[in-house]
Amino acid sequence: VSAGGAIVAGGVAALLFDVFGTVVDWRASIVREVRAFAAQHGIDLEAEAFADAWRGLYQPSMERVRSGAEPWLALDDLHLRSLHQLLAERGLDGLPEEAVLDLSLAWRRLDPWPESPAALRRLRERYVVAPVSNGNVALMVHLARHADLTWDAILGAEPARAYKPDPAVYLTAAALLRLPPERCLMVAAHNGDLCAAGALGFRTAFVHRPLEFGPERQGETPDGAYDFVAEDLADLADRLLD
Amino acid sequence: VSAGGAIVAGGVAALLFDVFGTVVDWRASIVREVRAFAAQHGIDLEAEAFADAWRGLYQPSMERVRSGAEPWLALDDLHLRSLHQLLAERGLDGLPEEAVLDLSLAWRRLDPWPESPAALRRLRERYVVAPVSNGNVALMVHLARHADLTWDAILGAEPARAYKPDPAVYLTAAALLRLPPERCLMVAAHNGDLCAAGALGFRTAFVHRPLEFGPERQGETPDGAYDFVAEDLADLADRLLD
Repeated sequence: VSAGGAIVAGGVAALLFDVFGTVVDWRASIVREVRAFAAQHGIDLEAEAFADAWRGLYQPSMERVRSGAEPWLALDDLHLRSLHQLLAERGLDGLPEEAVLDLSLAWRRLDPWPESPAALRRLRERYVVAPVSNGNVALMVHLARHADLTWDAILGAEPARAYKPDPAVYLTAAALLRLPPERCLMVAAHNGDLCAAGALGFRTAFVHRPLEFGPERQGETPDGAYDFVAEDLADLADRLLD
Repeated sequence: VSAGGAIVAGGVAALLFDVFGTVVDWRASIVREVRAFAAQHGIDLEAEAFADAWRGLYQPSMERVRSGAEPWLALDDLHLRSLHQLLAERGLDGLPEEAVLDLSLAWRRLDPWPESPAALRRLRERYVVAPVSNGNVALMVHLARHADLTWDAILGAEPARAYKPDPAVYLTAAALLRLPPERCLMVAAHNGDLCAAGALGFRTAFVHRPLEFGPERQGETPDGAYDFVAEDLADLADRLLD
């Protein structure tokens, strides 16, 4: 049955992407934003350490939603709350709220890894491409505009009102595309993400991002039986468009 | 506060589009698909009348969901059910199911009104643009690929699990974009759609589509106090990008 697009019958029809770290370089971008914020407000912040501490609160903040300790909150809101906490810990809780809110939205202004925009455009010629990120819809919309990412739809945590690796996130994405999991390829630089998706029947592609955590720490290395292990998204495109 | 994109501060930030009739020419496309289907299966179908009858079942089929008479069903499913009903009424219920399913997905292959693709690309340079259609996500994804429509996200009935003019559809779209209704402009060729959105505080733009129902019936004419009344999407773009 034709689904009205360029679909590879019986095979993978959609590529679902983790975004932070996999498609965009969150750390260098957040370091840059924190540094500019500190300069603008004449405060002393070690930008690399601050960026790592902020990202360090990412999993704990989502875990409160995952565990049911609190109701659904979008990642924009969790980012703002974590930022307030970090600033307060440093005695910086008197900064203008508008400026703090703007910094909290720095996650909408992350730069892509260099090859991501062109690789996504190539992949979209044959496959449906969508983020399946923990970022909320508005965050992903603005990030795509900033980083020139071409998506067919914004899927991920918010449509499911759950955070990865909750199965609901992956299964909601496949259901919205009306595809069974085995016709969806989850693409990520993180073993946990791929492990969760693979357990549900999704196909999996690991992408190496050795610089995700900066030059002094190593990115994840593949630790699972994945359908593809790629050097970057251009390499993945070469192999999927063979 | 910068939201990370090209946002007109204090004004309209997002354009939300009705799609069937407003952005794409459903009738000419469905007539073409029905005619091809009839030829392929050697059956006699008056394609224009069949297309109108199919669209005639659109509101009644959604009304069963709106009224609570049955649970959420995506428009792809309603289209298939209506098609089965129309074929059965004509004594044509013995056709291959795969062919009937493919015809039911003709709504993913509608052609755009001629100026729609370029106008959407222009509008996206300044505004977030998204469909707020009764079509489900997969339908809208494939339609956008077929008709070369550029969207930032797919919003509409399915994320709300409700059908327009249920307020939940419009309010869910604004909430997913994290915008108040007054910063969203609903664009449609239909008074009922704009009336429902306007009552919730959305801004409104009526687009003339005199040929929506074919050459022998007149399209809707504006019957309300709208922020904009445009000849087509190129005209709307000219005025919004002034």
